[in-house]
Amino acid sequence: MAADSLKNIRVVLCETAHPGNIGAAARALKTMGLGRLHLVSPAHFPHRQAERLASGATDVLRRARVHANLDDALAGSAFTVACTARPREIAATMVSAREAAARVVEVARSQPAALVFGNETFGLTAAEVGKCQLLATIPANPEYSSLNLAAAVQVFAYELRLAAHGAGAPAGKPRTHARHEELERFYEHLERAMVEHGFLNPGHPKKLIPRLRRLFNRAQLEREEVNILRGVIKALVSPKRRRSRNI
Amino acid sequence: MAADSLKNIRVVLCETAHPGNIGAAARALKTMGLGRLHLVSPAHFPHRQAERLASGATDVLRRARVHANLDDALAGSAFTVACTARPREIAATMVSAREAAARVVEVARSQPAALVFGNETFGLTAAEVGKCQLLATIPANPEYSSLNLAAAVQVFAYELRLAAHGAGAPAGKPRTHARHEELERFYEHLERAMVEHGFLNPGHPKKLIPRLRRLFNRAQLEREEVNILRGVIKALVSPKRRRSRNI
Repeated sequence: MAADSLKNIRVVLCETAHPGNIGAAARALKTMGLGRLHLVSPAHFPHRQAERLASGATDVLRRARVHANLDDALAGSAFTVACTARPREIAATMVSAREAAARVVEVARSQPAALVFGNETFGLTAAEVGKCQLLATIPANPEYSSLNLAAAVQVFAYELRLAAHGAGAPAGKPRTHARHEELERFYEHLERAMVEHGFLNPGHPKKLIPRLRRLFNRAQLEREEVNILRGVIKALVSPKRRRSRNI
Repeated sequence: MAADSLKNIRVVLCETAHPGNIGAAARALKTMGLGRLHLVSPAHFPHRQAERLASGATDVLRRARVHANLDDALAGSAFTVACTARPREIAATMVSAREAAARVVEVARSQPAALVFGNETFGLTAAEVGKCQLLATIPANPEYSSLNLAAAVQVFAYELRLAAHGAGAPAGKPRTHARHEELERFYEHLERAMVEHGFLNPGHPKKLIPRLRRLFNRAQLEREEVNILRGVIKALVSPKRRRSRNI
């Protein structure tokens, strides 16, 4: 059922400074039928300001999970969207909240998906964005695009609800996206191989790894594709030809 | 011009109890390029809580006009929408926020229009609704549909902006896609390396190359990314820098 895809979507708030925003975000989620709230290193939580602004959504707060880092918060997520107000230096694919919602809901029909929001002042770091498959933004006034965090959560949650309940389920075979931790292991594998072959100086990694992450994140790798890519790396780094066929 | 229609739209908040909501609403409006805020009998205004939550939108607060009744606030409006969370006893036409936004923007191309929001707890009275041409609501969780006032203003303002400007994704940095022949050379390079390392039997290539093509095509590779990937392949197939190091 369409509504169920909302249950597969988690919202991750990173390093939120103001507990009131956590409460208001919980309320925003519940009004749209979402309920999975994950918090990465919140400044204050639990907190009575959060309770107060959650209003009738304190159940969402109580079920919220707190993590020490983003990787833990994203464990199991098969499609992760970074929600950002700022144009990033990295020219990643940036889509509107509406388009992102459609894509998230599509994945969430069969697998867990996540939306990630950064700190109120600093937004998401490049490393955090690097763990996401898509960058999404709310079209805004270019002269003042600073939505309050909970307001941004409200808009995305609203678009998710409309995407889940709207008509027009896209056809096509459902894809099995790789999970967050499978992707991270692939990136580690690739980086290790590159360092060992002198292509990457770990002291001066430059933009290479972020660029490769961006490229593969854009492709929204399937689990099987990750396995193929790791097989390719393993084969290429092994001596030529009929030495060891370990794939 | 499309942008001008937003300047023809005012947002009216009736008997707002919490000044913080007025400030947050001002911020929500400004982020979407709206700026005409009218207040009917606010409980507290001006107020430092309003200033604080307006953040960078204190100019909208300063220009806000306070009225003793809704009629004054709606003077000159050619099309007025009542924004409500509750199904009303009045069997008025109820449309979604999205449809309401489209109709408001259409009118606002040539004439002033207004959106009206009620008190946080009691909403709009029947008399207030009776002064509006259309009733609009934000689709919400039937079990908990109580959006915060400023969050509701944010969603309507967002829909107004999209209706006025189109829902298109914001322009990121333009990407330089690889040309067809550059992609083909990359695929040849990859395939050759895979065959040489025994990962691909040229007699039985199976689905491997088509799958890799599909993956990389999906990513819509940039020219620079193709160069990076070819650099990675070249490095991986070359002997290790330090033989002693094992994976």
